[in-house]
Amino acid sequence: MAEELSFPTGLGTSTPETISLLGQDLAADLMGKVGFGELAFWLVAGRRPTPGEVRVFEAVLVALADHGFTPTAIAARLTYLSAPDSLQGAMAAGLLGGGSRFLGVTEDCGQFLAATLVEAGVERDYDVIALEAVRKAKAAKRFIPGLGHPVHKDEDPRTPVLIRIAEEEGLRGPHLRLFEAIGRVHPEALGRRLPLNGAGVCGAALADLGLPTDLLRGFALLARAAGLLGQIAEERRNPIAMDIYTTVDRNAVYEPRKD
Amino acid sequence: MAEELSFPTGLGTSTPETISLLGQDLAADLMGKVGFGELAFWLVAGRRPTPGEVRVFEAVLVALADHGFTPTAIAARLTYLSAPDSLQGAMAAGLLGGGSRFLGVTEDCGQFLAATLVEAGVERDYDVIALEAVRKAKAAKRFIPGLGHPVHKDEDPRTPVLIRIAEEEGLRGPHLRLFEAIGRVHPEALGRRLPLNGAGVCGAALADLGLPTDLLRGFALLARAAGLLGQIAEERRNPIAMDIYTTVDRNAVYEPRKD
Amino acid sequence: MAEELSFPTGLGTSTPETISLLGQDLAADLMGKVGFGELAFWLVAGRRPTPGEVRVFEAVLVALADHGFTPTAIAARLTYLSAPDSLQGAMAAGLLGGGSRFLGVTEDCGQFLAATLVEAGVERDYDVIALEAVRKAKAAKRFIPGLGHPVHKDEDPRTPVLIRIAEEEGLRGPHLRLFEAIGRVHPEALGRRLPLNGAGVCGAALADLGLPTDLLRGFALLARAAGLLGQIAEERRNPIAMDIYTTVDRNAVYEPRKD
Amino acid sequence: MAEELSFPTGLGTSTPETISLLGQDLAADLMGKVGFGELAFWLVAGRRPTPGEVRVFEAVLVALADHGFTPTAIAARLTYLSAPDSLQGAMAAGLLGGGSRFLGVTEDCGQFLAATLVEAGVERDYDVIALEAVRKAKAAKRFIPGLGHPVHKDEDPRTPVLIRIAEEEGLRGPHLRLFEAIGRVHPEALGRRLPLNGAGVCGAALADLGLPTDLLRGFALLARAAGLLGQIAEERRNPIAMDIYTTVDRNAVYEPRKD
Repeated sequence: MAEELSFPTGLGTSTPETISLLGQDLAADLMGKVGFGELAFWLVAGRRPTPGEVRVFEAVLVALADHGFTPTAIAARLTYLSAPDSLQGAMAAGLLGGGSRFLGVTEDCGQFLAATLVEAGVERDYDVIALEAVRKAKAAKRFIPGLGHPVHKDEDPRTPVLIRIAEEEGLRGPHLRLFEAIGRVHPEALGRRLPLNGAGVCGAALADLGLPTDLLRGFALLARAAGLLGQIAEERRNPIAMDIYTTVDRNAVYEPRKD
Repeated sequence: MAEELSFPTGLGTSTPETISLLGQDLAADLMGKVGFGELAFWLVAGRRPTPGEVRVFEAVLVALADHGFTPTAIAARLTYLSAPDSLQGAMAAGLLGGGSRFLGVTEDCGQFLAATLVEAGVERDYDVIALEAVRKAKAAKRFIPGLGHPVHKDEDPRTPVLIRIAEEEGLRGPHLRLFEAIGRVHPEALGRRLPLNGAGVCGAALADLGLPTDLLRGFALLARAAGLLGQIAEERRNPIAMDIYTTVDRNAVYEPRKD
Repeated sequence: MAEELSFPTGLGTSTPETISLLGQDLAADLMGKVGFGELAFWLVAGRRPTPGEVRVFEAVLVALADHGFTPTAIAARLTYLSAPDSLQGAMAAGLLGGGSRFLGVTEDCGQFLAATLVEAGVERDYDVIALEAVRKAKAAKRFIPGLGHPVHKDEDPRTPVLIRIAEEEGLRGPHLRLFEAIGRVHPEALGRRLPLNGAGVCGAALADLGLPTDLLRGFALLARAAGLLGQIAEERRNPIAMDIYTTVDRNAVYEPRKD
Repeated sequence: MAEELSFPTGLGTSTPETISLLGQDLAADLMGKVGFGELAFWLVAGRRPTPGEVRVFEAVLVALADHGFTPTAIAARLTYLSAPDSLQGAMAAGLLGGGSRFLGVTEDCGQFLAATLVEAGVERDYDVIALEAVRKAKAAKRFIPGLGHPVHKDEDPRTPVLIRIAEEEGLRGPHLRLFEAIGRVHPEALGRRLPLNGAGVCGAALADLGLPTDLLRGFALLARAAGLLGQIAEERRNPIAMDIYTTVDRNAVYEPRKD
């Protein structure tokens, strides 16, 4: 059947002479003139970020790139051990752990803050908004995304630094301010003090940059792609995956299922 | 069984008070001070790049980030259509196309140039080395990685730009020079003129930065992670995957297998 | 630090002389004596299925194995085109589309039926339970999983066949009966007649087999793994992925983003 | 642009009334009448296997389904820990380890045997062919795929059982016979006795079934999909991934890179 097809895109297209990306001439206007983080922001937001936005955005990517031997890093290394011929498979396996539990906090926190700000309506006192939000979450037995950390029980060192960088660039907006307010008021509602974690503050900062809150996980994944590359490069030089595998395997204990 | 375990790493570790990455204090020394591309280079190379190296490196990442509706971009969009709840799955599916045929040229070209330089021994005339290498490849009926392009049949616009950027930064080294020499001499051996393509010149430039040539595919994957995020963000705003799927499905024709 | 480690499992373990799986001797008791579908059931359920259960279970796997040029099949073929050296990557890319929209109906339907039966309490008339459930879903503007199909608008041919097979094996239990009741009563609540689809009836049948309803998607993925292998084998013999890719690429139209 | 498109397939197609697969009516002719392993064979080979072929084929799938805490099983469990909302991601991560090192032996062995038989020409004495092949591999410092096992140092219990099953079904063909011959003659060439491993004998048996030797890895992946589903089901009931992760993480030791 003869048909008219049309697949629109605002990203990359090419002719025999030129390559365009985002309506720019890739070779003449982007290469050597636009940073990689800057381009990633542009690709998602559809607009070129300011230098201050790039600095905050890249600080977030740097904060999220690698957290040592996380489940995702271990999964990538084990996959590289099994299939060293497929680097893309090891990276993909690592990224697949970027789900609700580990890498998801950034997106969850950004969405929680954005939704709370919408609900707050005309109220402009962040402590009031924060206290109400924490109380509602507690009543519904829901966790507050971005609050608490298994290792950094007093303070996550990334949190004050990212807030300071955003402040320096004039980008400490409502999401970061609300997040800080949650840090101040939550002990009143919860009866104990928890740290504002790094994944959470990254979500707040990305939301203040105007990035779509339902794609924030994507930035965590991009950051993690760099970290996974580092993990795989180290696995190649100084392997540990075989040792992890044999540690698990030699301590396997057969236990018949009972249910 | 009681055992002593030790998993060494030069990447990320943490204590309750600090987070270290590459032996640096992540919050105090890296966030806001190191760019994202710079960190990716550092994670793999184990050393901080110079500003000139960062410029060349990010120009490569920008050049490789998105090439429009490639098989990887289409696979990522189709996966997002099927499983919109799992952004990581769509990105992983896209990266899995980063194999020997499409994204592999960058690594193949870097490795080919590096191996040719080793074989060349004391010979220092790049045109002589290049002509010998092209003749050997032709005799063995092997393709020269980085030579030829389905669309940019005369010149790939990225190639001269990346060479110029490397020259400006004092980083136009032996791999790029050999690649350029291949561009000059191959018509003599092959009987026709082909363009030096963008994926190939990126491999040459990465090799001149001293990055490990068996991990060059990893940088193409990192670049592509940003491009895939852009594709998925566009799919979310302005979807085409359903149209691609139904175009294929409604033109399916049953043809019994004959063999 | 010296530590006692113990990783319990009821699945596979081995000694130099034997390989055990599920507490059985793999070579002596399973190979040649247990079918592949039978083993898959046993691995998840922790008990060996009866011959009748195997027949229903394999009928479900056969029903779900391949649905032609689905988004998952196309994604697998495109990934194989890009990275033919990594068959595992092409299969993984295809499975990653097994999310909420396409392959998810089987699990959604099984869970919906199970939850509805729990809520129904002592009520034993399936038509009464079904009408109540459909009315509640309609009031909440939720879709009923398993109801409706884009192609098979009158009847999905898999549905009556699977019900008959379950009946023949004495395994037409409460989930299937409730599903059939939904098929009878929904026009009264919704004002139009929709078919009971094949993915849904598979979910009902798997739930009647006592399989955990939050893992039903896994069986759809297992079935699809066979289908994807068939798609990739066909792509290797009679490729279409390059044609799909170029069809999309040559009909790309640049459209600047407006927002 | 108006175009005629046509995407041929011998697999699945559908009309509003029927669903076809492999030229059969899915509901009327396949569901309840064809086993799952049988269908998988048919999908790849393009012909329906005999009952004897099904028995050998399913014995292979059963042999390869689960090998306990392999790197792929651990990677799948860690991914499920990180992203429990995406079962497909955990399965995909596990399959991505199905590369050259662990799951690849089945395919490597089948291909090695097939190539050796082609090279052997008119020679019909398997011991002669085998001795020549082992000597050539030794001279080239290449491993013989299927020879040797890290745990089953004397005999892999799967090997004699699969040979017996193939014999019972009249399917002990040239690949299995050559593999057995390698088991007999290799000590003469290598100076020590190694076991014929289970992955290797599976490759030989699949090749004797006439399945394409460059897709044998796909059957190992299909078998492993069932095993991974079992691993994930167990992880859900009786989790160990968090324990694996924290074991690695708390034994991390910072060691600055030296190179």
